Amino acid sequence: MKIFAYGIRDDEKPALQGWETAHPEIEVAYTQELLTTESAKEAAGSDGVVVYQQLPYTREILQALADEGIHQLSLRNVGIDNIDLKAAKELGFKISNVAAYSPNAIAEHAAIQLARVLRRSKELDAKVAKHDLRWAPTIGREVRMQTVGIIGTGRIGRVLIQILQGFGAKIVAYDIFKNPDIDKQGLYVDSLDELYAQSDVISVHVPSVKENIHMLNKESIAKMKDGAILVNVARGDLMDTDDVIAALDSGKLSGLVMDVYENEVGIFNEDWEGKKFPDARLADLIARPNVLVTPHTAFYTTKAVLEMVHQSFDAAVAFVNGTETRNTVKY
Amino acid sequence: MKIFAYGIRDDEKPALQGWETAHPEIEVAYTQELLTTESAKEAAGSDGVVVYQQLPYTREILQALADEGIHQLSLRNVGIDNIDLKAAKELGFKISNVAAYSPNAIAEHAAIQLARVLRRSKELDAKVAKHDLRWAPTIGREVRMQTVGIIGTGRIGRVLIQILQGFGAKIVAYDIFKNPDIDKQGLYVDSLDELYAQSDVISVHVPSVKENIHMLNKESIAKMKDGAILVNVARGDLMDTDDVIAALDSGKLSGLVMDVYENEVGIFNEDWEGKKFPDARLADLIARPNVLVTPHTAFYTTKAVLEMVHQSFDAAVAFVNGTETRNTVKY
Ligand SMILES: NC(=O)c1ccc[n+]([C@@H]2O[C@H](COP(=O)([O-])OP(=O)(O)OC[C@H]3O[C@@H](n4cnc5c(N)ncnc54)[C@H](O)[C@@H]3O)[C@@H](O)[C@H]2O)c1
Ligand SMILES: NC(=O)c1ccc[n+]([C@@H]2O[C@H](COP(=O)([O-])OP(=O)(O)OC[C@H]3O[C@@H](n4cnc5c(N)ncnc54)[C@H](O)[C@@H]3O)[C@@H](O)[C@H]2O)c1
Repeated sequence: MKIFAYGIRDDEKPALQGWETAHPEIEVAYTQELLTTESAKEAAGSDGVVVYQQLPYTREILQALADEGIHQLSLRNVGIDNIDLKAAKELGFKISNVAAYSPNAIAEHAAIQLARVLRRSKELDAKVAKHDLRWAPTIGREVRMQTVGIIGTGRIGRVLIQILQGFGAKIVAYDIFKNPDIDKQGLYVDSLDELYAQSDVISVHVPSVKENIHMLNKESIAKMKDGAILVNVARGDLMDTDDVIAALDSGKLSGLVMDVYENEVGIFNEDWEGKKFPDARLADLIARPNVLVTPHTAFYTTKAVLEMVHQSFDAAVAFVNGTETRNTVKY
Repeated sequence: MKIFAYGIRDDEKPALQGWETAHPEIEVAYTQELLTTESAKEAAGSDGVVVYQQLPYTREILQALADEGIHQLSLRNVGIDNIDLKAAKELGFKISNVAAYSPNAIAEHAAIQLARVLRRSKELDAKVAKHDLRWAPTIGREVRMQTVGIIGTGRIGRVLIQILQGFGAKIVAYDIFKNPDIDKQGLYVDSLDELYAQSDVISVHVPSVKENIHMLNKESIAKMKDGAILVNVARGDLMDTDDVIAALDSGKLSGLVMDVYENEVGIFNEDWEGKKFPDARLADLIARPNVLVTPHTAFYTTKAVLEMVHQSFDAAVAFVNGTETRNTVKY
């Protein structure tokens, strides 16, 4: 059996080599090139391909694979919106993705960054860097003294709850579907309004479906405690960025963690050093001492990358063997 | 009853006002001046004084207080080495201190900073600040994937264990006196050598008594895993700084968290911006991407400061009332 992988980055190679070593019976080949109609030819003789790219998987590309006798596509990531699913169906493609590579990667990032905002870590780091080694007035707050409101108790929200409970924080949670474990612990409040009223820190972990777009806005912020801290490592469009900035300016919000941004596509994962930065609003957020911006890197850990590589290769093999896995995309 | 406090900083005022409000029957006065033979006169008519300073409490100062009829000293901090204890004894002084203001303040700081080193947060922050928003190659590691060795399972070490368990990390611990809870959990290894051999991250939480000075040195580091991370938020002289730097240079250690430094007195809590920095070795450590230096601020939280103020005032009142407390220093 032979599996061919596209778009392999340097940081994926250790995970890839680990998988190869564990599967000596399977031939693995890869390129750092993305999958195109041309590069599809490189997969000739392979049973399945493993991919990860923002670039569309067009009918032409899928046809080029089919021409090589390949009818399966195993994504190392979750999103399938860039696949021409109609073409994939007509060409008989089996598709797999990796939906849960590491909720901990994202939950840990949220916990660390929110603790840093409480601790005024960005201010303190800047002082130390310029050799101002005075403590005052950069006093911090402790995580254990906070009530943290978790919106969305899915995979990521639940791991975050566990981490924050380790710190000794008080948790209140809200979800449209109650999780039995969280419910048993008595953490749920009955409404978002209640969560907003009680929380010192609010962290959102819901999908950006239509009803959730801009759920963090002027109206919801008005219901929060004065000086609340917002954490968004989920999706940029869950918050109305202008409303959040206005609340930071007025002091209604005392801090913000953001790993995502409404207009991040085309800005994040690019190097703008020495170039004209395309988004003045984002530049302003990056420069604020009480705002911690990361460019959608919450997921970016060795463990997550390992899961993305291993699960996708496992799924590719499963397709060849004709077995179903939790990674199979029903479409 | 009247209590007079010296050296009150701005960040202590909220805690002070909170205590005053809760004790309307007690007259409180304070100054931001430190306690000297001159300023001792300001306490005239008071029953007790509350203090916090690095400056020595000399025989003359204690005599000046005694001349005002005051025979008690309530420290807002822990250290009593700057008190002339012989004079204090002869003058019949009762002394209290605050030994445990907030182990969580220090343990949370250790957890956050070690997670940041794993996550390469300093590198990522620097990239974001200069608008380089690429992920690669700044990939992080997850706390949950680490084995963390905790040396010293006293007040602070135990809280850190709880926090790291919330993350899902594996804990190994060592202490010359076993704590029953930690023992019951089966976390102890039999020797420091075993802890060094197993740990990806090593965090030290022991006092700097003679036997512990430079316990982290060339020999002990040689017993650690390649790429281990060291965390020292306890005392600077627990590690041989030159040996640690050599290990960072060779890559034997992949990161370092330090809130304390062997030669910190006279350097930390001063502003060196625009002045000649007195310690080139420390400047080098501060500049390294895999080293997080803070100037002995692990303790510096609103909760810790509140405890320091409240416990010291409570102890001062207890002395006046002739009751013993856990804050009384036996000397
Ligand atoms: N920053 C990153 O690198 C990164 C990586 C992966 C996922 N994410 C994002 O994190 C978020 C959570 O991911 P997950 O894997 O935990 O998802 P999940 O599907 O496991 O959980 C989402 C939860 O939100 C709940 N929910 C939906 N709408 C809600 C609402 N209006 N109010 C309350 N609860 C609501 C659902 O019932 C579910 O329990 C998603 O937005 C995802 O896109 C971010
Ligand atoms: N950075 C800060 O702001 C800050 C603030 C407070 C305390 N500290 C320091 O943190 C450290 C721990 O404080 P704590 O309150 O937890 O102390 P603690 O007395 O509660 O605990 C210390 C533990 O270390 C153990 N121990 C002593 N020598 C040992 C050795 N050689 N090997 C293994 N275990 C040993 C003791 O048995 C004890 O259990 C101290 O050095 C203290 O000075 C730092």
